[in-house]
Amino acid sequence: MTTYDIALIGFGGVNRTLAELIATRGEGLRSDLGFGLRVVAITDLRLGSLVQPEGIDLSMALNLGGSETFAVHGGSADTNNESVIHTCTADIICEATYTNPEDGEPAVSHVRWALESGKSVCTTNKGPVALRGAELTSLAEQNGVHFEFEGAVMSGTPVIRLAKKMFSGLKLNGFEGILNGTSNYVLGRMEAGLDYDAAIREAQELGYAEANPAADVEGYDVQLKVLILANELLDAGIELKDVKRQGISTVTPEDINKASRAGRRWKLVGSAQRNPDGTVTAGVTPVELPLDHGLAGVSGATNAVAFDTDLLGHVTVSGPGAGRVETAYALLSDIIAMHAAKTGAVAHV
Amino acid sequence: MTTYDIALIGFGGVNRTLAELIATRGEGLRSDLGFGLRVVAITDLRLGSLVQPEGIDLSMALNLGGSETFAVHGGSADTNNESVIHTCTADIICEATYTNPEDGEPAVSHVRWALESGKSVCTTNKGPVALRGAELTSLAEQNGVHFEFEGAVMSGTPVIRLAKKMFSGLKLNGFEGILNGTSNYVLGRMEAGLDYDAAIREAQELGYAEANPAADVEGYDVQLKVLILANELLDAGIELKDVKRQGISTVTPEDINKASRAGRRWKLVGSAQRNPDGTVTAGVTPVELPLDHGLAGVSGATNAVAFDTDLLGHVTVSGPGAGRVETAYALLSDIIAMHAAKTGAVAHV
Repeated sequence: MTTYDIALIGFGGVNRTLAELIATRGEGLRSDLGFGLRVVAITDLRLGSLVQPEGIDLSMALNLGGSETFAVHGGSADTNNESVIHTCTADIICEATYTNPEDGEPAVSHVRWALESGKSVCTTNKGPVALRGAELTSLAEQNGVHFEFEGAVMSGTPVIRLAKKMFSGLKLNGFEGILNGTSNYVLGRMEAGLDYDAAIREAQELGYAEANPAADVEGYDVQLKVLILANELLDAGIELKDVKRQGISTVTPEDINKASRAGRRWKLVGSAQRNPDGTVTAGVTPVELPLDHGLAGVSGATNAVAFDTDLLGHVTVSGPGAGRVETAYALLSDIIAMHAAKTGAVAHV
Repeated sequence: MTTYDIALIGFGGVNRTLAELIATRGEGLRSDLGFGLRVVAITDLRLGSLVQPEGIDLSMALNLGGSETFAVHGGSADTNNESVIHTCTADIICEATYTNPEDGEPAVSHVRWALESGKSVCTTNKGPVALRGAELTSLAEQNGVHFEFEGAVMSGTPVIRLAKKMFSGLKLNGFEGILNGTSNYVLGRMEAGLDYDAAIREAQELGYAEANPAADVEGYDVQLKVLILANELLDAGIELKDVKRQGISTVTPEDINKASRAGRRWKLVGSAQRNPDGTVTAGVTPVELPLDHGLAGVSGATNAVAFDTDLLGHVTVSGPGAGRVETAYALLSDIIAMHAAKTGAVAHV
């Protein structure tokens, strides 16, 4: 049976959870999916790096104590991302570090190093896909490897792959989505009577919102996701500046109450639509939706995308938009897709 | 390039629409999907049968006038389903006749004849899948052909195939669905103030409900769909009698009003759940859902299924539950899946 050797680049919540899944369910995954996974390299800003072509003891890696680094287990206290990615024996690089919204670094470089050294990549970072998607996809093709990124939008909820694989034979006219759980939570709490600042504070206390909540509430996060979906699914060929962006900080309690009385509800909607001339118009903006709109009932941290198709009309998928386990599953689903592409098989559980 | 020869068994709304799609978009489908479709046989209760291995002129078939039958074009005024299915040169049989809820006939025989003569089958009928699914799937495997039936549940909205292909690596604990548009429409109209009989009459006038609405409002239709999903997706191994059934005729305007005042809403929910001992409990019953439940906002003729998974929690897909074009697309999506299984390719548009 096939075993894929994988490298975990970044050992925070997502890749740690993937390691836990492999450690606790390894044999089950093997019998369910038809392949095994062996971790042969891990790098981490804090823990350093460890490369073991014969397979890393995951329980050791998951239980490194206190200020220990991989140096005490034959690795290095340095992260060494470039050399590890270039030289390790992994078939697949699982990239789950971080990304800045300007140029997508350092995730973009991690992906590029992997692809140019003939390794397939799955990433949960939006940056490489949104800002360098076409270049990196082309680099993967040139090197005969895969570049997968289901986790960049709505964590492990199948969205990108669903639209690519389940809508064959349909024309996709566009999509509308609720793509950020934090802003959706804040709008919901404002509907329940909180003012904007109190709702933000509550979201921060619950761990939904960052200390600086701008990326979520000002629509930057959704903007990147809309860009990804527009380019990947509508072949829009657009850039970040083409996605108009407005966040929810301009929505007042009065707006919320007025909508409520009119049987409507504010949502931060990211959308893209193909125009008659073939171009695509994309944006992020708060919208007052009627309560019977398919996205109006998407509450709290749940995310959803409604696809507008020619033969089926609207088809909507909703599910978790974030989460450690949910995002780790996105990486697993990417590896399953690579295996299916290689073998022509679709794994069933 | 591959061309699949197909036979249309039943030439009512669904297969006529498939023929129209092939006639009007044939070349586009070929370039989008990587294969062509040629209709080599059509049978119909009213029009008789026509077999032409070199390909039938679809505009002729779609425009047969008045009381004309295929006899005037070299065919027969008789339906001849058994002999046409057994002897025609089709690779794939598109079965869209009808099915009775007791033994699934005549659709079951159509499917069996096709599979035993080495032809793949796609059907939009629930009967063969719900009542003879295991037998027919096994017959297809023995004969090295495909048996596909996405259209049996929620027309062309990807549900069965979505769960089988997009949830690899997940454990499915169960599902809850709104699987009948007529009963959902009636409940919605009752919420708007109509009584049960008036809502049924309106649904009949709009063409949503049959003259005898029992199959829809008494839950028989949903019962078959729950049986299909439970056996196909949860490997439940259950029979029709194991799916407890209660329709919406017992829901009174008082029930509706009471729910409304409590911020709740009645829905006819079909569901199945895996029990700790591995068995599956399945049923159809009217349920009062809180308005923030993922299925509460599914209105009118829209259908939805919420899947309960281990790693992603709830993932819900909603879309059309019926319709000529939507169901014809289900057949096309089945053929696309057969092609993908054969070539390992997934067609993109």
